[in-house]
Amino acid sequence: MALVVIGGVAAGLSAAARARRIDPRLEIVVLEQGPVISYGACGLPYLLEGRVRDPRQLIVYTPEYFRKERNIEVRTGARVIGISHPRREVTLHGGERVRYERLVIATGARSFAPRIAGADRSHVFALRTLDDAQRIRAFLGERRPRRAAVIGAGYIGLEAADALRRNGLDVTVLERSANVLLREDPHFTAAVRAQLHQHGVELRTGAEVTAIEAGQVAGVPCDLVILAAGVKPNTELAAEAGIEIGRSGAIRADDRLETSLRGVYAAGDCAEVCHLVTGRPAWIPLGTTANKTGRVAGANAAGGRERFAGIAGTSILAIFGMGFASTGLSVAQARAEGFSPVAARIEALDRPRYFRGKTATVELVADRATGRLLGGSVIGEEGTAGRVNVIAAALHSRLRVEDFEQLDLAYSPPFSPVWDPLLIAAQQLAKEL
Amino acid sequence: MALVVIGGVAAGLSAAARARRIDPRLEIVVLEQGPVISYGACGLPYLLEGRVRDPRQLIVYTPEYFRKERNIEVRTGARVIGISHPRREVTLHGGERVRYERLVIATGARSFAPRIAGADRSHVFALRTLDDAQRIRAFLGERRPRRAAVIGAGYIGLEAADALRRNGLDVTVLERSANVLLREDPHFTAAVRAQLHQHGVELRTGAEVTAIEAGQVAGVPCDLVILAAGVKPNTELAAEAGIEIGRSGAIRADDRLETSLRGVYAAGDCAEVCHLVTGRPAWIPLGTTANKTGRVAGANAAGGRERFAGIAGTSILAIFGMGFASTGLSVAQARAEGFSPVAARIEALDRPRYFRGKTATVELVADRATGRLLGGSVIGEEGTAGRVNVIAAALHSRLRVEDFEQLDLAYSPPFSPVWDPLLIAAQQLAKEL
Repeated sequence: MALVVIGGVAAGLSAAARARRIDPRLEIVVLEQGPVISYGACGLPYLLEGRVRDPRQLIVYTPEYFRKERNIEVRTGARVIGISHPRREVTLHGGERVRYERLVIATGARSFAPRIAGADRSHVFALRTLDDAQRIRAFLGERRPRRAAVIGAGYIGLEAADALRRNGLDVTVLERSANVLLREDPHFTAAVRAQLHQHGVELRTGAEVTAIEAGQVAGVPCDLVILAAGVKPNTELAAEAGIEIGRSGAIRADDRLETSLRGVYAAGDCAEVCHLVTGRPAWIPLGTTANKTGRVAGANAAGGRERFAGIAGTSILAIFGMGFASTGLSVAQARAEGFSPVAARIEALDRPRYFRGKTATVELVADRATGRLLGGSVIGEEGTAGRVNVIAAALHSRLRVEDFEQLDLAYSPPFSPVWDPLLIAAQQLAKEL
Repeated sequence: MALVVIGGVAAGLSAAARARRIDPRLEIVVLEQGPVISYGACGLPYLLEGRVRDPRQLIVYTPEYFRKERNIEVRTGARVIGISHPRREVTLHGGERVRYERLVIATGARSFAPRIAGADRSHVFALRTLDDAQRIRAFLGERRPRRAAVIGAGYIGLEAADALRRNGLDVTVLERSANVLLREDPHFTAAVRAQLHQHGVELRTGAEVTAIEAGQVAGVPCDLVILAAGVKPNTELAAEAGIEIGRSGAIRADDRLETSLRGVYAAGDCAEVCHLVTGRPAWIPLGTTANKTGRVAGANAAGGRERFAGIAGTSILAIFGMGFASTGLSVAQARAEGFSPVAARIEALDRPRYFRGKTATVELVADRATGRLLGGSVIGEEGTAGRVNVIAAALHSRLRVEDFEQLDLAYSPPFSPVWDPLLIAAQQLAKEL
């Protein structure tokens, strides 16, 4: 029995490691097309910033580690160019064939900037790999650019803007849609815009970029461009092998992460999964989901029987020291999904004043028909991650506002006010329901 | 229709304010025996420390505020000495009688140090009121004590020890039981002991104190003693009125917070409430519960129909900058409640090293028979409150470990590692189940 895993970053390695736990004797091979495995892609903005000084700090495991400690063969520079499921084999670039009995596809996603002329200019960079980050660092050192344009206000774009600003550049972020972070939420976008502005970064939404010229993009003068306009799942291998692709454009998988081909699993940024709130397939590529789906896919591929519960779409990022977090659906997203959303947004101190309490903003969204919580956002300095995680836990349990309002949350002055901002928001929302 | 509330701190004022929202025309009178209302008792250790410089910083509302803004009459120095339910009236010290149709009893709890001789000496202080804190401050300034003994390792005792040590005193904490914070959990106690020791405070457990002498307590030389050996609910008024007292010793109340007398409600530190995990009545007096039960009691007393879900017993305190938090049941407590507990305790970084990640310790306890999460503890610097709150939310929803393990928690390097310590603990626990 042999398990082949295509992809050696978060999902692929989680799958391989978990499969090994389930079956100590299984033959496991991980095929990674790049030169390194297991790097923390979410740390790339901090490598760009200079906070992470050595790219090796972002590499969690090496192929040697997996070979020696886990008895898993990890091959780098091994690019799969075809899957033949009837023959249960994959073909590598170069012609070599590798047999499998079970297969996990963890091919990830890639940067996607359609129809932007000049994207291949030498001052234009993506930020998806260690190599990308190092090339930008080198460019910063050698060319000393003074003005940067960041195309795309997703996580990578906003974190790159923060990192470049901290390196002394003037930065403008150009986002095609009306919102940042793919969250259809004008208040959230306004808060991000205000925080960026306060630290000298301009955010332009509704800014369609069609061409990158030598000295400007969409009228913004710049000598460095970060292209972070979006990602798309790497599904070509799967599609060519006859595996069903979902409506989101990512590989369709059931709650065991099995694809339409029996014995073939998909995990990580290339797969769509169930959204806990809508109950429908969604594609929200994040590292946490990649690890979790990798674990479940690996367990099942090794003969286990595990279920992936689904995602709430929880995310957080820091912009100049302020946390911006959200989970579940915004009002607009809830409406688009057929709910009848009601929301409450409050501002409250995150701690007493004598512990230097700062303002936290909490928004909660619920369904008017059922009182069920649908999502929320938290913006603030202290406790932002913890608060959005409480909302996420509530989404997992389909908690209603009247239950959420009574959560027995911890209180002590160094940590929170006696009424946590979450509970104040819930009380406000309960009045609206 | 008149509502009388006995007690003007957390529960009583929450009840009055909420009753006003439910019924704008209700006559509402709050009777408080002390000189001030609405002070944040949890801030007292910080007043003692000197971080809070003015006691007025801890007073949230004044009687004038309630009178003018809420049309609620708040009387201070109004001590109720009897309740006659057949006549629907309370009698004040001095003889005045006040009629009610609905009554909320929020008489709180008091310091309780049985059989300690010398507890009335002039260098012995409790720490339950603003006045207590100010008297200790004055004593520190005038007498310049150098060595303090704190009797009792509950919240107030440990926070007072921290505060006194920061004022330069040598401090020893004497606790009668084997555990701190009433949590039967040797690991938790060991962690508290280590943190205290590292900052020069000695913790002696199993230390029975029977007498306080002029220069020493239980062999510990000291010139200042803080008596924080326990609290007991103020139930005498209720008991004399024929109201049923629960097995915990606090006033028994149903899930609407109504006592055994119809139309009479109890809330806050004098009442017992349902424990979410055990389903049985419990008495865990905390400010958060006082506020929540006050709200529900006030709503129902004003003609609403609300339910109090119960408590998880969530709590947190800071000891020299480290957070110690717990919720639900420890292993020993779970066993005593008839569960068959399994636990996993892990140490993990709370953030990546390049964001100065520190070790966080997470313990999760589950029931072997059902896989249901029963409780947990979190010890660490960053994110401790948020993490224990996620466990608390899971207890509200009776989540099982296999669900908890898949929680979609927020990740970004400034806030957490990609596998949050909570999820690592859950994975470990899942292996044990």
